[in-house]
Amino acid sequence: MTEAQASGRTTIEDLREAASRLDAHDPLAEARSRFVLPEGEIYLDGNSLGACPVSVGARVEDVLTRQWAQRLIRSWDEGWWEAPQRIGDRIAGLVGAAPGQVVVGDSTSVNIFKLTIAGARMRPGRTRLVVDATTFPTNGYVIESGARLLGLDVTRADPQHLADALGEDVALVMMNHVDYRTGELWDMSGMTQQIHACGAVALWDVCHSVGIYPLQFDELGLELAVGCTYKYLNGGPGAPAFMYVRADLQPAFDQPLTGWHGHAEPFGMQPDYQPAEGIVRGRVGTPPLISMFALDAALDAYNGISMIDARAKTESLTTLYIDSLDALVPAGVIRIVTPRDPGRRAGQVSVAHPRARDLVKELASIGVITDFREPDIVRHGFAPLYVSHSDVVEAVQALAALLPYPPD
Amino acid sequence: MTEAQASGRTTIEDLREAASRLDAHDPLAEARSRFVLPEGEIYLDGNSLGACPVSVGARVEDVLTRQWAQRLIRSWDEGWWEAPQRIGDRIAGLVGAAPGQVVVGDSTSVNIFKLTIAGARMRPGRTRLVVDATTFPTNGYVIESGARLLGLDVTRADPQHLADALGEDVALVMMNHVDYRTGELWDMSGMTQQIHACGAVALWDVCHSVGIYPLQFDELGLELAVGCTYKYLNGGPGAPAFMYVRADLQPAFDQPLTGWHGHAEPFGMQPDYQPAEGIVRGRVGTPPLISMFALDAALDAYNGISMIDARAKTESLTTLYIDSLDALVPAGVIRIVTPRDPGRRAGQVSVAHPRARDLVKELASIGVITDFREPDIVRHGFAPLYVSHSDVVEAVQALAALLPYPPD
Repeated sequence: MTEAQASGRTTIEDLREAASRLDAHDPLAEARSRFVLPEGEIYLDGNSLGACPVSVGARVEDVLTRQWAQRLIRSWDEGWWEAPQRIGDRIAGLVGAAPGQVVVGDSTSVNIFKLTIAGARMRPGRTRLVVDATTFPTNGYVIESGARLLGLDVTRADPQHLADALGEDVALVMMNHVDYRTGELWDMSGMTQQIHACGAVALWDVCHSVGIYPLQFDELGLELAVGCTYKYLNGGPGAPAFMYVRADLQPAFDQPLTGWHGHAEPFGMQPDYQPAEGIVRGRVGTPPLISMFALDAALDAYNGISMIDARAKTESLTTLYIDSLDALVPAGVIRIVTPRDPGRRAGQVSVAHPRARDLVKELASIGVITDFREPDIVRHGFAPLYVSHSDVVEAVQALAALLPYPPD
Repeated sequence: MTEAQASGRTTIEDLREAASRLDAHDPLAEARSRFVLPEGEIYLDGNSLGACPVSVGARVEDVLTRQWAQRLIRSWDEGWWEAPQRIGDRIAGLVGAAPGQVVVGDSTSVNIFKLTIAGARMRPGRTRLVVDATTFPTNGYVIESGARLLGLDVTRADPQHLADALGEDVALVMMNHVDYRTGELWDMSGMTQQIHACGAVALWDVCHSVGIYPLQFDELGLELAVGCTYKYLNGGPGAPAFMYVRADLQPAFDQPLTGWHGHAEPFGMQPDYQPAEGIVRGRVGTPPLISMFALDAALDAYNGISMIDARAKTESLTTLYIDSLDALVPAGVIRIVTPRDPGRRAGQVSVAHPRARDLVKELASIGVITDFREPDIVRHGFAPLYVSHSDVVEAVQALAALLPYPPD
């Protein structure tokens, strides 16, 4: 019996043993083989850029060498034109949405702009837009720009006190499902009800929950949503984003980026814009198809994956991370800014430390990839399809070794 | 001596001989080897989707297998972040622009929206936007949307009588350098002067001239431009578009898609939008990097190519096409809608025929790839880097064989 065991303290050996046990019973363990991962490294930044699925290479090669190089323009009739809706429907299956409500294309920021303007136009006469004060900044920048064009005001709301910001003058409320800094997961159901209670449109950003949480768009009745595909969905760097418009609202969906791909007759070449029926009216210009088909192939990694299992594993990974931090890093050396209640966090654990920026670099130099966010945050992302419990314990051990004690 | 020769008529043999001679002296002949082209086919649709350059495959593979799969998030610091400006500068070299004025990203339609709003904001108090009545439809749709948001009017101008549409109330004029249906090339220099004479901002769409015409953005003094990279630049299906903002106007460039990639401090995570200095403020969200690096590699096909040579060859190809039509298709069977003056056309020749839609299909079935545009147009695009004079003659011969005479 070691001194630690005698004292009742949890040791690294205990943690490793627990991790092995959890990995042995992990129903998603097989999914790791669906990814190419760098040898000898632990990748905890899938909340920023997902790992590369094995399925991507062959598909992209087919797009380049056969679809583009050989079939050339004919490929537009052989699967290219419908790709944004078809891939959208694949994502619909991951967010609790019936088909025909999700379309893929453009960046998240561009989609936020479409949804901000279109959402505000669903509530004519209302003068205010609300965005969470903790939002990933681009959402705030874009909503301000939309408000400026529409002559509306913008209020920043503390998501813990959303009701304080609401009122009958609010046209649209944009909330992030997950705080990108702290990893806090907000109550999408309860907040959507609050938003609806004042008659506003609910626009949710699920960039940090899609792929790791059993989203239920249709069931919650939210109007609009936007999400990223290059984080947990592993679509590749800058993979096109997706947007959701609830089916019954599509006829009234009046978005400002009126490009020809959203036209009712894109090859009719008519001078006036007549939006297509359905979610297709969310399309704009010609989408970046090589990136889009990389995403399509990447989604194969989710084939047969239950979002319930993904959520359960993410909770298990983040819990083990926090337990390991508690065991291996003395209290006060770092501050865990992510909620300890697993029901209140998503896929990341963020720790604050004055030397956060350097810690991220030092961790990377020993093969543990995390990222830094202002002002003092180290983010650790736990993608349930390819991160193991053993990775978690080794990552904490690596961090603990870098932290001086007592704190400097 | 054949009957045709005796009569002084140009025969197919004469045309083939002329084509061989022209190909033998073509300074761009070598460039064809820079492309993968389908065996046994003649590709005359590079004005819609450019052919696949040989250089693309290896680059994309490196992006997938090394940059993404192995380097993962670190690649953002290893060339990803600056790619939109760096590739923009490569395109600047093809459009007569000094570095720092072109950025790549988003679709052409999205860029038109940015430029429409930002351009109109450069002329506060003016109430009208002008677009050419013959525009590719998306430009018209987007300018109408921008005008609606800004509370402005839109006038459609006949490009042959642009002056009639101008006035001191005009904030911005968007013109297409080339008519997408007829292939007519407009006088960018003269029309820019007309636009400037009334004090408006000139926004040019060069989708159908970039890569085949020695554009001189800086010399002409136009304010704004947008262009496509998947036509003559061969960037791949849906490759991101580019936009040009004249250097001296960049500090006043106030565009509506205020995404975080255009922020002065993208990782500062500040709540308010502060645009970056320079052309970077044209960026929005995370760009589709696999598509973007395919474009970057594709531009290698232009290395060492003089735009003067590209223009000369395009004129030579289109002239031979028209001469061959005159020789092989009796007068009245089809109508050439592209100007016969080579100075008034760009890279395509369009012919009108009541059976145009079927003709495009029938041509494709015998290996000649063209495209159809409403209502009765067959477009033939002549990409100077990979289309030969011999291709031209064989394509006309194929078309002639499909046309009944006398006309039905």
